[in-house]
Amino acid sequence: MSTFTAINLVARPVPGPIGADLFEVVTKTIPTAGPGQILVKQTHMSLDPAMVGWMSPDPESYIPPVGLGEVMRSAGIGEVVESNHPDFTVGERLTGMMGWTEYLLTTGEGLRKVQPGLDEEMVLSIFALPGLTATQGFFGFGNPKAGETIVITGGAGSVGSIVGQLAKAEGLNVIGVSGSEEKCDWMINDLGFDGVINYKTDDIDAKLTALAPKGVDIYFENTGGPIQNHVINHMNAHGRAVVCGMISDYNAQTPSAGPNWIPIIKKRITVQGFAMPDHFGQLPELIGKLTPYVMQGKIKYRSHVLNGLESSIDGLNLLLTGGNKGKLIVKL
Amino acid sequence: MSTFTAINLVARPVPGPIGADLFEVVTKTIPTAGPGQILVKQTHMSLDPAMVGWMSPDPESYIPPVGLGEVMRSAGIGEVVESNHPDFTVGERLTGMMGWTEYLLTTGEGLRKVQPGLDEEMVLSIFALPGLTATQGFFGFGNPKAGETIVITGGAGSVGSIVGQLAKAEGLNVIGVSGSEEKCDWMINDLGFDGVINYKTDDIDAKLTALAPKGVDIYFENTGGPIQNHVINHMNAHGRAVVCGMISDYNAQTPSAGPNWIPIIKKRITVQGFAMPDHFGQLPELIGKLTPYVMQGKIKYRSHVLNGLESSIDGLNLLLTGGNKGKLIVKL
Repeated sequence: MSTFTAINLVARPVPGPIGADLFEVVTKTIPTAGPGQILVKQTHMSLDPAMVGWMSPDPESYIPPVGLGEVMRSAGIGEVVESNHPDFTVGERLTGMMGWTEYLLTTGEGLRKVQPGLDEEMVLSIFALPGLTATQGFFGFGNPKAGETIVITGGAGSVGSIVGQLAKAEGLNVIGVSGSEEKCDWMINDLGFDGVINYKTDDIDAKLTALAPKGVDIYFENTGGPIQNHVINHMNAHGRAVVCGMISDYNAQTPSAGPNWIPIIKKRITVQGFAMPDHFGQLPELIGKLTPYVMQGKIKYRSHVLNGLESSIDGLNLLLTGGNKGKLIVKL
Repeated sequence: MSTFTAINLVARPVPGPIGADLFEVVTKTIPTAGPGQILVKQTHMSLDPAMVGWMSPDPESYIPPVGLGEVMRSAGIGEVVESNHPDFTVGERLTGMMGWTEYLLTTGEGLRKVQPGLDEEMVLSIFALPGLTATQGFFGFGNPKAGETIVITGGAGSVGSIVGQLAKAEGLNVIGVSGSEEKCDWMINDLGFDGVINYKTDDIDAKLTALAPKGVDIYFENTGGPIQNHVINHMNAHGRAVVCGMISDYNAQTPSAGPNWIPIIKKRITVQGFAMPDHFGQLPELIGKLTPYVMQGKIKYRSHVLNGLESSIDGLNLLLTGGNKGKLIVKL
């Protein structure tokens, strides 16, 4: 009888780094597919900032938290290794929410087939949560127009890097914000952003004045933190702040204060929060919107690959600190 | 040669109460209407919170500031006392931006005729900035649905009191916030609000829990201040925060911090700032929308009348402190 490993969430996070004590690594027997079921062997897991939110109960969140004792929730890619379901054959690759587990038994509901030939890291970096989130946020809420200026916090992150490249393709002036020189270099030299701001070392106001001389029209927010006041002050009338993530505050002892709302009135700004589960019904359209940019080679990505299921735990801390360089993926 | 009085803005406000030193009271000779001109004698002036913003230069504001040495800007009602314009006859009443002056010479551009029989205080309290702002903000941005809950800060104010009554007429659960018991009594007993919160004396969270057991769908913001965090925390998914005014912060030494944006993501909240000059092109539609509610007796108002042009200066401080009881009007 062969076994496999899975990781359950057993405690709720407290402010500060994510500890191994929140998880229980369990060994289970590889099951057999029953009638209508398939057995999937997961090969690549995606680690995303949203996962930190899924670990904490919040009655008002857009998605129920992971229950204590349940397998930690995550997206991934796997291969069908056994099938009792007419729609799936052994060897096919599937993607969707699979969780922190090497094997899963499923009816295939909610999983999509991966086109043969597509690289797994590319699929998880672009045609999964990051690319769909970027596409929905940028086009669905950013209302971009050529010639406008966009500021993207977490500009080198999995979502931000795609937003910036979509914005470049659409003719916007693109400014990426990051806390690392290496990431700033990547945004400028590889992704083709027009300007970058290192929020840890730059004079943010001076940089915004220089890089956005006509003001900021779209503020794509992935991080939160003190940068918010600076960007809001540089925004134009009828600017749009698309609030996608607040990674710098998710596990903070005290979440930072937000900007005062006077500029929101004076400049008639729209601040719009969004979360992808509201848009899962639009996945085909979102993929259809994103695909041509990828096909035309306009969307580059880089992945930061960890090895082995148990590396996921510390991987979450890389997301919290911005220590990852590229889309964080765990290879199983 | 008869004379009249006008008041010019001669200095910019600093944090704290508005002082008489910001203004210059001037005596001028009553002019004569030239070709195509009319001479209007203003009878009633409106004092509105937005005026505090108009006194300070802000390159990004929705409206240029009042220039130093210029007549202070305000809305009012006056009577045509001399006309060399084919569209206007002596004795007609006009309303629009007239400024802090007893007489004005104009081509009539931007002024609307007041229907005979309408009371001046009613016109300035309902069919002027307050009612049009309330109508645009509530219907245009609040997206109200019967059965929803709305929280209105400054609920007894000139805009808030109309928003609340429109919301009652539309079948919403209406909660008004104020800093005075007298105003809370007025909202409950005269305006028919479902609940009130005195932000100075009540346990705000406990009150919101009791008065909005199903959560808050629309947050109509007229004041700013620490109440923001409480209301945001009680908002429902897809809630709308309509940001109309921040009177508590306009002249503060340090504007208060805003709420952290994490709930904006988790609950996919829309925070929308607006200002009426963007909507002046829609005035006929807005008046058309508002009129039936007024005709059906659903919109009550009360006015707080000051006497004489020079009372305007201290009148601004009543707005900043919430000391006015009803729509602030200066009778000339």
